[in-house]
Formats: sequence, structure tokens, C-alpha cells
Amino acid sequence: SVSQDLDLEILETVMKQLDASKIRENLRELSREPHLASSPRDEALAQLLLHRWRDPESGLDAAEAPTYEALLSFPSRERPNRVAVVGPTGTILFSCRQSEQNLTGEQGGPDVVPPYAAYAPPGTPQGLLVYANRGTEEDFMELQTQGIRLEGTIALTRYGGTGRGAKAVNAAKHGVAGVLVYTDPADINDGHSSASQTFPNSWRLPPSGVERGSYYEYFGDPLTPYLPANPSSFRLNPDTVPGFPPIPTQPIGFEDAKILLCNLQGTLAPAAWQGALGCDYKLGPGFRPDGDFPAERYFWVNVSVHNRLELRNSSNVLGIIRGAVEPDRYVLYGNHRDSWVHGAVDPSSGTAVLLELSRVLGTLLKKGTWRPRRSIVFASWGAEEFGLIGSTEFTEEFFSKLQERTVAYINVDISVFANATLRAQGTPPVQSVIFSAAKQIPAPGLDGLSIYDNWIRYFNRSSTAYGLVPSLGSLGAGSDYAPFIHFLGISSMDIAYTYDRSKTSARIYPTYHTAFDTFGYVDKFVDPGFSSHQAVARTAGSVLLRLSDSLFLPLNVSDYGETLRNFLQAAQRDLGVLLEQHSISLGPLVTAVEKFEGAAAALGQHVSALQKDTPDPLQVRMLNDQLMLLERTFLNPRAFPEERYYSHVLWAPRTGSVATFPGLANACSRAMNTSLGSAAWAEVQRQLSILVVALEGAAATLRPVADL
Amino acid sequence: SVSQDLDLEILETVMKQLDASKIRENLRELSREPHLASSPRDEALAQLLLHRWRDPESGLDAAEAPTYEALLSFPSRERPNRVAVVGPTGTILFSCRQSEQNLTGEQGGPDVVPPYAAYAPPGTPQGLLVYANRGTEEDFMELQTQGIRLEGTIALTRYGGTGRGAKAVNAAKHGVAGVLVYTDPADINDGHSSASQTFPNSWRLPPSGVERGSYYEYFGDPLTPYLPANPSSFRLNPDTVPGFPPIPTQPIGFEDAKILLCNLQGTLAPAAWQGALGCDYKLGPGFRPDGDFPAERYFWVNVSVHNRLELRNSSNVLGIIRGAVEPDRYVLYGNHRDSWVHGAVDPSSGTAVLLELSRVLGTLLKKGTWRPRRSIVFASWGAEEFGLIGSTEFTEEFFSKLQERTVAYINVDISVFANATLRAQGTPPVQSVIFSAAKQIPAPGLDGLSIYDNWIRYFNRSSTAYGLVPSLGSLGAGSDYAPFIHFLGISSMDIAYTYDRSKTSARIYPTYHTAFDTFGYVDKFVDPGFSSHQAVARTAGSVLLRLSDSLFLPLNVSDYGETLRNFLQAAQRDLGVLLEQHSISLGPLVTAVEKFEGAAAALGQHVSALQKDTPDPLQVRMLNDQLMLLERTFLNPRAFPEERYYSHVLWAPRTGSVATFPGLANACSRAMNTSLGSAAWAEVQRQLSILVVALEGAAATLRPVADL
Ligand SMILES: [Ca+2]
Ligand SMILES: [Ca+2]
Ligand SMILES: [Zn+2]
Ligand SMILES: [Zn+2]
Ligand SMILES: [Zn+2]
Ligand SMILES: [Zn+2]
Repeated sequence: SVSQDLDLEILETVMKQLDASKIRENLRELSREPHLASSPRDEALAQLLLHRWRDPESGLDAAEAPTYEALLSFPSRERPNRVAVVGPTGTILFSCRQSEQNLTGEQGGPDVVPPYAAYAPPGTPQGLLVYANRGTEEDFMELQTQGIRLEGTIALTRYGGTGRGAKAVNAAKHGVAGVLVYTDPADINDGHSSASQTFPNSWRLPPSGVERGSYYEYFGDPLTPYLPANPSSFRLNPDTVPGFPPIPTQPIGFEDAKILLCNLQGTLAPAAWQGALGCDYKLGPGFRPDGDFPAERYFWVNVSVHNRLELRNSSNVLGIIRGAVEPDRYVLYGNHRDSWVHGAVDPSSGTAVLLELSRVLGTLLKKGTWRPRRSIVFASWGAEEFGLIGSTEFTEEFFSKLQERTVAYINVDISVFANATLRAQGTPPVQSVIFSAAKQIPAPGLDGLSIYDNWIRYFNRSSTAYGLVPSLGSLGAGSDYAPFIHFLGISSMDIAYTYDRSKTSARIYPTYHTAFDTFGYVDKFVDPGFSSHQAVARTAGSVLLRLSDSLFLPLNVSDYGETLRNFLQAAQRDLGVLLEQHSISLGPLVTAVEKFEGAAAALGQHVSALQKDTPDPLQVRMLNDQLMLLERTFLNPRAFPEERYYSHVLWAPRTGSVATFPGLANACSRAMNTSLGSAAWAEVQRQLSILVVALEGAAATLRPVADL
Repeated sequence: SVSQDLDLEILETVMKQLDASKIRENLRELSREPHLASSPRDEALAQLLLHRWRDPESGLDAAEAPTYEALLSFPSRERPNRVAVVGPTGTILFSCRQSEQNLTGEQGGPDVVPPYAAYAPPGTPQGLLVYANRGTEEDFMELQTQGIRLEGTIALTRYGGTGRGAKAVNAAKHGVAGVLVYTDPADINDGHSSASQTFPNSWRLPPSGVERGSYYEYFGDPLTPYLPANPSSFRLNPDTVPGFPPIPTQPIGFEDAKILLCNLQGTLAPAAWQGALGCDYKLGPGFRPDGDFPAERYFWVNVSVHNRLELRNSSNVLGIIRGAVEPDRYVLYGNHRDSWVHGAVDPSSGTAVLLELSRVLGTLLKKGTWRPRRSIVFASWGAEEFGLIGSTEFTEEFFSKLQERTVAYINVDISVFANATLRAQGTPPVQSVIFSAAKQIPAPGLDGLSIYDNWIRYFNRSSTAYGLVPSLGSLGAGSDYAPFIHFLGISSMDIAYTYDRSKTSARIYPTYHTAFDTFGYVDKFVDPGFSSHQAVARTAGSVLLRLSDSLFLPLNVSDYGETLRNFLQAAQRDLGVLLEQHSISLGPLVTAVEKFEGAAAALGQHVSALQKDTPDPLQVRMLNDQLMLLERTFLNPRAFPEERYYSHVLWAPRTGSVATFPGLANACSRAMNTSLGSAAWAEVQRQLSILVVALEGAAATLRPVADL
């Protein structure tokens, strides 16, 4: 029937049927073998998903596994990457380990890819070692200030502070010849580093663990920006592609980093640069005469990288449950499938949830008990670890169709980082539906407390509209939601269970992107009993059903008003004086925000009135179109032409320190030190106008549809 | 009711009530005074329209007159532009007339703006005169080949062959200091030029007539590309805006051009350069010793231009009839209001029709007899003559809302060029609805013949799907449809009555943009009795009603297949070999066109099946959304970044000679003379991929909505 609405009994049934032990079994199978993007096991898992989604008893209406041909990067099997200390005649005094230790029998095997920096170019630089902290531009400036000659050196850096690739980019600008990256125990293990304090004796990263990762600056297949990576598509020349690290780069474990770093000579590094390796960190260059490499200061570090770029087939798996009433409205739910090694947490904890959710819904579907109002599309993306490739290519291929018809995108990548609390990121329209879901699901292990009640204890903020509420994070580009929100302007979210931040300051869960991210690790340390996995399955499942089945879309567009107001206030507070000095008024922006708030509030009242009524199906559809398409009105593909894919004027990357509209913040920070009337100040004005037009345009789409 | 459909009786009533004499009265009032953009009379006419649309008996539901602040260009009242022949001491030997002759008392008055080239910069160059034919790049190359030194000369050019502004751009590249432009009787009067053969003795252009026009290269307000020209909007610096003519330029009448041109010395101009001024056209430079300026060859032509740029308020007038069932679907119908002088033909013949149509519909509305299914928005655009400014700013301001909701845009600018036949331009989806309308309306003065029957005698083509049909022209950027089709991707059309091309080869109607385009001219020569105006009102009115009222949108998306097939065949025929030599295959494009055809055909069958059924309202809406949004799928704002506003991959400007996909054609013509592996050949491949992705994406939106 055209008035089909969310059925609370079905919702309750789904919540009950989501089974922790089945998620555990899914995870065991998914993480049984390493499944690096495009590897045979990755493709086998694609077939597993396809098979599940085509199951006559618990599958979906249809499933497919389309393939893209993407440029990936792998270390050479024949010539392993190597980091060594070499003497003047080439003698090797020390060599970093080339694979992680197999501590529990789960970390070994021929399919474990050795640690490497994907997309780092091949090369064998050698030079004196320097310590460069996190490899930011400021860090290298500090070294220069300290009088250290960087030309031809090898820079040892630690993870964090900036993107992976940025470390090599910054280093190269200063003449550095090669980069090493390691994870400091201070940043990942709350300072602990001994074997007895780390896995398998705790969830902490063991000394040999190495974080792999993509060092490519953008996302999507590097050869086909804005075009799907189909076999016939135009491809850039790989030799001139922008965004790859300019110099050889290799990640190592802290066990090896300690040997290198604790043997450095030179000035003591600044306090903020010190870590937990148990020695004073010095800057170099070169080793101290009284250490393990005593002979002379011309003991060099040699970094041998033999990575290769390869065009590889990578599959997405897509499954659909066709909507009964509005099949042309899609709720998308996705996660990547590929991992660096076994990837039990990343991404299989999410895929295990995805499979359990699709099983429960598929079973109801096949029994004839239920069919959603709108279509549900499940996606298992390929090659996310190399830069969100599967999801990005998908959005490039189906740009128009997705932009016209997608209600929202739900991403559950790592479903459980830790088991303290829910954590959600998203744009304001999805806040209310996540809250609704979280309020109705019990928090695991906390009798009588809802997920919402627990969540608000860990992350909260004071909302002008609602008082104290859990705080929703904003979406960067950390997982497959990025192309949906930034490139297509689709309201998106990412849902997970995560840490108690009072108990750990780890950058991320300790075995992230290492060979230690295994089923046993999850089963023993991350979520024994899988109740947090179940909690995420329920939360994401409830959000999914509410979006697919509610007669009125549960997207609260008024909640954008609060973001706009906060951004505006930050601009007024932190940029107002500066702008005034350049005769730039925030007045039009104030007016635009007010118009948005007014239109959103009036629309909210219209929704309430309609909900009391028995509206005709077209009235509901018209209203839902306004709600669905609001996010699209913030897209402007001409706003940031140099920022590939980023078109959302509210969520594009922000480099300035003021938490305000990114175009304005970035333009101001660029103009700051230029003279009155400079092109940079004109750009500030242009960005302000782009913003005003977007907000006024958004308000116009919220106003009664037949207003002039 | 949600199943409200087109009511044929209402349609018949509207057709009957559209009254030729009321159109005549509208035209008399509209063209009574000159109404240059932003002039008091232009604003008074905006009020007239607003008043009509707010009439309680025959008005619309609501009407507004929002204003933009746009950069226009006017000649100085105090220092009129002047073109003169001057001697070495500055004596004036001859001066062109500074206003047209007042031949019938209708051409005079203080509000007649003297002839000028809008946006041409001020300056007073003087130099030897040369004749440069139509001022194309080829024309100037020819002069160089003939050994003529162009540096510092004044180039006399004739209208046609290329855009107005391009003549000055081309000239400046060769060092020319000033440009004159005139209309040759060969091009506008079928060769006739004497007073007795021209207005007021015929419809032909009299010797003093001068075509005004905008010489700006782009469209929209020059200071606010991609932003609406609101008071607070960011504006470019007028001194550095691209697209203005680089050198002083002035249009003159053929009476004066004759004196200049027939006195030139030098080589005889090529045969194709000769016109109908009654003398041999020579190239110059300078005047012949045996003519009117005999003394010496250093008699110069002095061009004194005193144009000024001014920020001026210009209004659009918008009126709406709210849809009864789908108020959030808009059918837009518009024309500009501003003219160069009295503008009886351009644009008032269209505005007179617009007012009559809104009166008839408004009366039915106010009587309670009728309300359309979808909303109808009428628009009277400001400042079109300066570069489609009002319509462009409107699309910039309401980009999202319009793109999401607009079913089609109907433009009727000049409604009657001449009274021989209907002429329509548009994108393929609107072909069928124009045909349906044209078949049911009698052709004026041709007993028993429909407009369609008459039309097919003048313009026709052989369609693979339908056999012989009237041929629809394609949309350039000649009127306000340009931003709708090129920038927003909204299916658009332009409708008019026009010439019998076997009787005249005039570039356009002879008094175009001159002071002779008056009510008397229309009443006596263009359309005595106004039956062609009525025919256009009926055709456009029928198209409008069919689009606003039909349950199923009368947009035939299959008709795009024929365009794609024709473009493909042209590419295969004329570019195939060249592409093959560069190892570029058209195979993927062939496949994409086939996919489009297949999806469109299947959708057509789906429509037929649904029409026999009693579909639920959401099924119809979903289908209509597919039809409405097809045109949007051809937009790619990143396809031609250097072509301002042009994003439609099928209708962007094409410079190559092959009638195929413009991106492909242009890239090929640029690559043609470059070496294998050049960046230009890479661009050909990129353009091909952009095209394939657009066509595949379009096909995806036509396929069943819940297909993967
Ligand atoms: Ca791509
Ligand atoms: Ca503008
Ligand atoms: Zn992940
Ligand atoms: Zn990851
Ligand atoms: Zn016009
Ligand atoms: Zn005109």
C-alpha cells in the first residue's frame, strides 16, 4: 500500500534476530585468511558474499559483483623491501625485520603481505638518519632551525599528526631521500612496549607490529579521477600521476625503530617529540659513537623499496532488496571487504555485521513477512585500503542515478574498535534517526541502560535545541562514506563501538593494519562474546530500517541549523575582526543562516501537521524529496576545483584552525598574510558568496514548494 | 485527485480563447516606447507584467519582481560615439550618422539609444581603413596573406559569420586598433538597398538602420560568473574581466558603410567578400585617390567610443500557477522583456504572446475552472540583450531547486520572425510534445492544414523511427534557454514562426536590433492580422498545458537515441580512421549508445503498459522522474571547465566541422595536427570516456529503478 510505514514489530523482530554468535562465525570465516584487495582470497570472499546474498532462504532479491580495473601497489615477492644500517663498504650492521613475528600461529603464512607503504616509489636511498617526529612541515622546519642539514638524509618519523603520504611529501621538500615510519608505543600502547605487556598478553601492539597503509594523497583509483575505472576508460600516465609519495618510504615496527632511534647522536629532540621507546630521542644526523653502531658517523641507513604499481581487478559486491512502494529510493549500506592482512577488526568486524544484518532481513524477505518501502542496497566495496577505490569508482559510474535517488548512505567499516560506547559520525540530518535507534537498544553489559544513555556519558555536547545530547562526529575521508558525502552530497554516517577515552589514548586500536589484527585478537581482547558487534548491528540495522520503511523520512533537516549557527559564531568570533579590517561583512551570511533556520523550522511544522493528517502519497513524496535532497544543495563542484571530489561547501577539508565553514576558513588562512586587495582576499569574498548562495539555495528548497 | 490528467476540453478552450487582437494590443503597449534593460520604461513594463499577473480576474496565484545588480554598458549621452574620416590636421571630412533616420515618426525620441557595441571599451583609435569581410580569424589571415599591414588600422567588418565580440577579438590579435561593423544588404535585404525598396516601403532594412548588440563573449552578468548578481555577491574587477572586446568597436548603417567601403583603394577583395553596396569591395588600407577622400592616403578613419560600464538594477518578473497535485514540479515558460529600442519583434512579439497565454490561463484559474497538475512558472527576464543576464542569474540563484524540480523550459523570445511556418528548437525529449501540439492546431491562412503539416513542408528530415518528420533545430545560446539547457540540464525548447527560406536569405528579420523594429513594422509587414502570433501562442500554450497537466510526462526519451545514433555515425564516418590511427576505439561508445537505445525502448514499453493499467500515483511519479531527469544525466560540470556554464556533453559548443558529440569533435580538431601521444590526443581519449560514462549513466537511469 502507498501508505506503508515502519512496522515496529518487524523492527523488534530484526533486533531480536541479530545474533552475536552468528556475527562471531562470520568473522571467523572472513578473517580466516589474509584478503588483501584483488588477492584470490579477496575475490573468494566476494563470491562468499554473492553466494550468501543469492541464498534462496536468506538472500536478497538480486546480487552482482562488478569489477573495476584499478592501479594498486604491492611489494615485490622476489626482492623484499629492506631497511638496514650499512657501513661504508656496504656491510650490513643491522637489518629491520621484514615480517612481523608469528606469535600465536595466526600471524604467518605466504599470503601475509610484508609491511610496506602502498604507492611509495621504488628506490634504494641511503643516508644519515635523522629523527623527524611526525613528519609535519613544522617538524622539518624545526630540524632546519636546529641547523640540521636534511639533504640526502633518511628521516625516521612516527605515525600520527598528519596523513601517511604527507610525511614523505614534506620530507622531500627538504631534500630528504627516504622516509621511515613507525608506531611509537606512546601513541598506540599508552606507553607500554615490552613483550609481556603486549599481544598476546594484552590487546596492545607487540614490538614487531607494523602499520601498513596507503600513502596516496587523494582517493579513488589514481589513474581515473572522475571516471569509473572500467577497462575502456581513459587513464592517466602512472609516471605523472599526482599524489604519490615522492621518495621511497617504508614502515617498520617499534622494536626496530628503537634500535635506530636510540642510537642517534645529536641534539636532544624537543619534549613533545619524545616517545616511549625508553631512551632519549635525539635528532641525529647519524649514530652516536658510543652506541650499537659505534665506528664512525658515516654509518648509513639504507632503505630499499621495490614496490610495484599493478593494474588489478577488484570487485564490489552489491545486493538489493527492492522497495515495495518506492523502489527508486535507495538506502545504501556498505563496508569494504579488503584488508591489509587478516583484517579481523578492519574491516571484517563490519562485514560480519553486514552479513548478519543481510541474513536477518533476507530471511524475512524470503519468508514473505516483509519488504521495505524503499529499496535497500548492500555493498561490499573492494580496495578501500588503497584509497576508497571500490566505492569511489561506483559513485563515478552511477553519479546521476545515485544522486537523484539515494536517501542516505550508512557505513559500518570497523564495527568495534573497543567495547565502551557507541560512536557515530555523520551529517546533521542523520542525527535524529541515530538517536531514535540508540534509545531503543540496550547497551551491552549495562543493565537497563540504552545505547543512547551510555553514549551520552562518553561523547556529548550541549545543543541549543535539545540540551545535552550525544555528539555526532563529522565525516572526514577515513572510509567509504567519503565519495558519498563529499562527491555526491548524500547524507551519510559511520557507526561503530569504541573506546573509553579515559582508559586509553591510543591513536586507534593497537593492531590496526598489522598482522596481529586477527580473529583471536577480537575474540579474546576486542569484544569477547561479540555483544558490542551485536549492539552495532542493532543500531545500524534500526537506522537502516527506519530510513527504508518510514513513511516520512526520518531526516531532521532543522538539525543542520545548529551546525550553521555554530560555524557562523566561530567565524564571527575568530574571523570577524580580521574580515572587518578588509571591509568584508558577515552580514549576508548571517541573513542566509537565519533564512535557513526559518525555512527549516517551518518545514518541521509542516511535517508535524502532515503526520497528524492522512496525507496523499504524493504529498509525502514531495516532502520526502525536500528532506532527501537538502544535502545535495550544499554541493558546488566549482567551489574547490583543486580539491579532488570535495564539493560539499560545509564538509570540505579545513586547514585553518577556526572551526567554521571550510571554504571561508581556508581562504582566510591563505589571505591572512597578504596585502589588502590581494587575490587571496578576493578569494575570501568569493568563498563567502559561494557559501551564502548555497545556504540561500538550501533554504529555497526547504520553503513551500510552490513559493516563488 | 492524484490521477488528474490533461483535460482535452480545457485544452480546446485555451486554444479558442487565445486571441490575436489581444496579442496585437499587448504588442502595441509593450513596444510603445523603447525599453532598454534597466531603463525606466523597462522597469515600468515589469510593473505592467506584475500588475497583470496579480489581477484578481485574470492573474496568477502569485507574482514577484526580484532584481539583480548587473554590469551593463551604455553609450555616453554627453559624448556620443562617432565614426569619422579625418584629415592629417584633424579636419573632419565625413561623419557617420549618430542615430537612425526617423522615417515614420516611430523611430525617434530621447529614449532611443544610439547605435553602439555594448561592452566595447572606450577609446578613440584612428588609422587607415581596411575591409575585413566578416572579421573571422580566416579573414584576417587572408588580409595578411595579401600583404596588408594591419597594425594600427581600423577594420570594417560586416555582421554574420561569427559572433559580434569575436570580430574585435580576432582583429586585436592582428594589431587592429578599432573595428566597425555594418549589415550588408546582401546579407539582410537579399541585396536591396535603396530607400524605395526598404522600410517603410517594404520590410527591408533602410540604409540608416544599425544593428545594436552585446559584444560580450560569455553570458550572464560579467562580474558574477556562477554566482547570482545580488548586491552582496562577490564581483570580479571590471578592469580584468575576460570576454569584453579588447578594442573600441562601433556598428554603423550600410548607408555610411558604403561611403567608407566604396572609397577604399587596394586589391579587389575575394569574390566571397563582395556584397551589395553597388561597388567593388577593395581591401584598403586607406582610400583611393580618385574617390570622395582624394587628397592623400593618410586620410584616416577615427572611431570615438565613449561607452561606460554601469552597475544597474534589472528585474525579472516571475508568476506562478500552483500545481494542484504536484506543486513541486515546475514547467517554466519565459521570455526576456528588455529590448534595444522599441523591440516590437524582439522581444515584444514573444512577451505579447506570454501575456495573452497567462491571461487565458489566469482567467480559467480565477474562475475555478482549472488548476494544472504541476506548477507553471511564467518569467519575464531582464537584460537578455546584454547577455541573457536575468535568466542566467536566476539559474545561479536557484540552481538546486530548479535542477531538482523543473520538468521543462519553454522559451518564446521573438514569436514571429515571419509568417511562413513554425520553427522549433529543442532537445529530443520535447520533440514529441511539440509534434502533438502542432498536429492539433490549424496553420494560419492555410485551410485545413495543421501547423505540423505546414511545418514539415519547410523543415524536415528523415527519422529512422518515424520516417519524414519536421526537423527540430538544436539549441545554441541565442536566447534565455541557454542557462537552462547548458548549465542546468533542463529539457528546453524555443518556439517561433519564421520565414520561407526560398523567398529570402536574410540572416534574420531585417530590422533586428534597430530603431525600425516597431509596432507599425510588425502590424504592416511581419504579421498583419497577428494570426502567426496566435499560432505560436496556441502551439506554445498547448505544449505548456501538456507538460503541466498530463499524468504521464509527454517527454519521449527514446528520441534521444536518434541523436546519439546520428552523432555516433558522424564520428564513425568522419573521425573513425583518424581515431584508429591513434589506436582510439569507438567500440565503447558504440556499446554505450546501444545500451541507451535498449534502455529507452524498454522504458517506452513500460510507459505503454502503465498507461493501459491504473497505476498507483507513486508509480507514475517514479516514471515521470526518470523522464524528467534524463536530461540531467548528460551534465558534467567537469567536462569543459574552460567553457563557462556549458556542462551538457551533447550540446556544448562545437568548433570542429563534424556534426558529432562536441567534446569529441573539439578535442579531435585540436589534436589533429599534434603528434602521436600528445596531451591533445590524451584529451580526445578523456572526452571519449566522459561521453561513454554519461551515456552509460543515462541508460542506468532509464533502466528499471531497482535493477543493480
Ligand atoms: Ca576513477
Ligand atoms: Ca552571475
Ligand atoms: Zn577499514
Ligand atoms: Zn583500514
Ligand atoms: Zn530576443
Ligand atoms: Zn535580441
